[in-house]
Amino acid sequence: MGELVLAADLGGTNLRVAAVDGDGQVLHHVRERTPHDPDPMTIVHAIADLAEKCRCEVAGGESIKAIGVAVPAAMDVSQGLVHYAPNLPMLNGMHMAAELERVVGLHVVLENDATSAAIGEHWLGASRDAQVSICVTLGTGVGGGLIINGQPHRGPDGTAGEIGHICLEPDGHPCGCGSWGCLEQYASATAVQRLAKEALATSTTSVLKDSPALTAQDVYQAAVAGDEAAICVFRKMGSYLGLALAGLINTLNPETIVIGGGMSAAWDVFIEYTREQISKRAFHEPAVRVKLVRAELGDDAGILGVARLALSS
Amino acid sequence: MGELVLAADLGGTNLRVAAVDGDGQVLHHVRERTPHDPDPMTIVHAIADLAEKCRCEVAGGESIKAIGVAVPAAMDVSQGLVHYAPNLPMLNGMHMAAELERVVGLHVVLENDATSAAIGEHWLGASRDAQVSICVTLGTGVGGGLIINGQPHRGPDGTAGEIGHICLEPDGHPCGCGSWGCLEQYASATAVQRLAKEALATSTTSVLKDSPALTAQDVYQAAVAGDEAAICVFRKMGSYLGLALAGLINTLNPETIVIGGGMSAAWDVFIEYTREQISKRAFHEPAVRVKLVRAELGDDAGILGVARLALSS
Repeated sequence: MGELVLAADLGGTNLRVAAVDGDGQVLHHVRERTPHDPDPMTIVHAIADLAEKCRCEVAGGESIKAIGVAVPAAMDVSQGLVHYAPNLPMLNGMHMAAELERVVGLHVVLENDATSAAIGEHWLGASRDAQVSICVTLGTGVGGGLIINGQPHRGPDGTAGEIGHICLEPDGHPCGCGSWGCLEQYASATAVQRLAKEALATSTTSVLKDSPALTAQDVYQAAVAGDEAAICVFRKMGSYLGLALAGLINTLNPETIVIGGGMSAAWDVFIEYTREQISKRAFHEPAVRVKLVRAELGDDAGILGVARLALSS
Repeated sequence: MGELVLAADLGGTNLRVAAVDGDGQVLHHVRERTPHDPDPMTIVHAIADLAEKCRCEVAGGESIKAIGVAVPAAMDVSQGLVHYAPNLPMLNGMHMAAELERVVGLHVVLENDATSAAIGEHWLGASRDAQVSICVTLGTGVGGGLIINGQPHRGPDGTAGEIGHICLEPDGHPCGCGSWGCLEQYASATAVQRLAKEALATSTTSVLKDSPALTAQDVYQAAVAGDEAAICVFRKMGSYLGLALAGLINTLNPETIVIGGGMSAAWDVFIEYTREQISKRAFHEPAVRVKLVRAELGDDAGILGVARLALSS
């Protein structure tokens, strides 16, 4: 048996840790709720506890090489320093790699969660073999990770890949980032809910009128059932996604664009509009070249991405 | 004396060839009108003739290592194949490197003109020392070149960097590329002329009413003189440029953005609006980090960029 690493995916809601071998096989997997204690060391200890559980489960004499952690934050990867974690603000400014290394006794590699997913999909998923790829995560927000020349592109502040905050409508809907009309305001689950509310204001016949929660899942099911208002929501969502991707295709000429995250489950009701905008707006050669595909690794993309980094650390 | 190369800048209007040494010193420089004969070999022979003139002027026994050519085209650099040259369509589909190599008897390196400028500015100009930089050329159109991890980023089709065709207004002004509302429609010299015409339709007092040609230069001079309509044109132009750059800052986290091309001469009347949009719309860390600077190499950026490639070929 070859090398083993531990890999953690620190989400705003769940913390997951896995033991992963050199081929990307997940040998053991544990999960718990992410602690939201103001003391950032609580998170460090939670990761260390789950890491220890995984280590015990797979311990057959082999040593663990390192631990990788996917963090929902802008960070300085080389220093293991968290700059800005909007959903886990207690981590802001923390030298997380050093603290975790001290507690867990293993070499620690941190990575932004969206970049981790891009690395995972590039290693074992939908963008294998691509030298230039973009991984888009459509969830509560819209995240992104870039692979350029086969390597993750982070930029000097570790903030590269924030494609959810490309502006598509200069005077559009206000965004949490401080700008207006960002992709995130048209292509996230939150955006689908808002667009559905807007559609209901002018529709008298939509079945969504009877949906009290009006989740993105409700809107999807209504669209599949042929509801005009719901279809219109996904036409808008898919078109804006295509508009943003067309600009990225002209800018980066990627071989593959991977679409993941919870909203990618609605692929069949929006992707046609995404393709239409790319075909209308991007340059011919790169538009024909690019493969627009669904993510293959699901929730494991981030785990496998940081496992890859830990293996090569 | 060290190595010498030849470097050519093939423009839609002018063809320039220079002899350049290993430090980027231009030792000799010749220029003529770019031939527009339907036979693409006419251009190859014109480059070869100017190359021969340069070679004679600098010949003191040293040998010329190679020749680099900046071409206004999307191309496969590794194969020396021109895909699409909108302003020199006779080159479309030509294996230009092989043809030129046969005629001129030197190793030939081709590069897209905007990427050449980015390489030149990165070698000896405004983006020296930057690992990640974007070079924007504001001319008749809007071009762009990317440097990522210190290397030009071309993409598999050689079309990367086409930032002039990022969409900023989904239903905006039609663009020559087939899309609508591209950056090029708001920040090029052509766009400044159009925006000035639009401004004149609602202004009765602008001095531009007396400008028959209404060139971008006329609009600039009016703005400097305090003409409200002209100032409004550059507010719009600078703001749209900032909108596009904010998206690129969030996507790529560049250390430096270099603004060159003829329209960059109007820097003092538009850059404040560009900075304002970046500050409002881009993430804080990368917005504070990025240096927004004027190009330093002027017309020589492309020549020096391909000289650099020829030197390291």
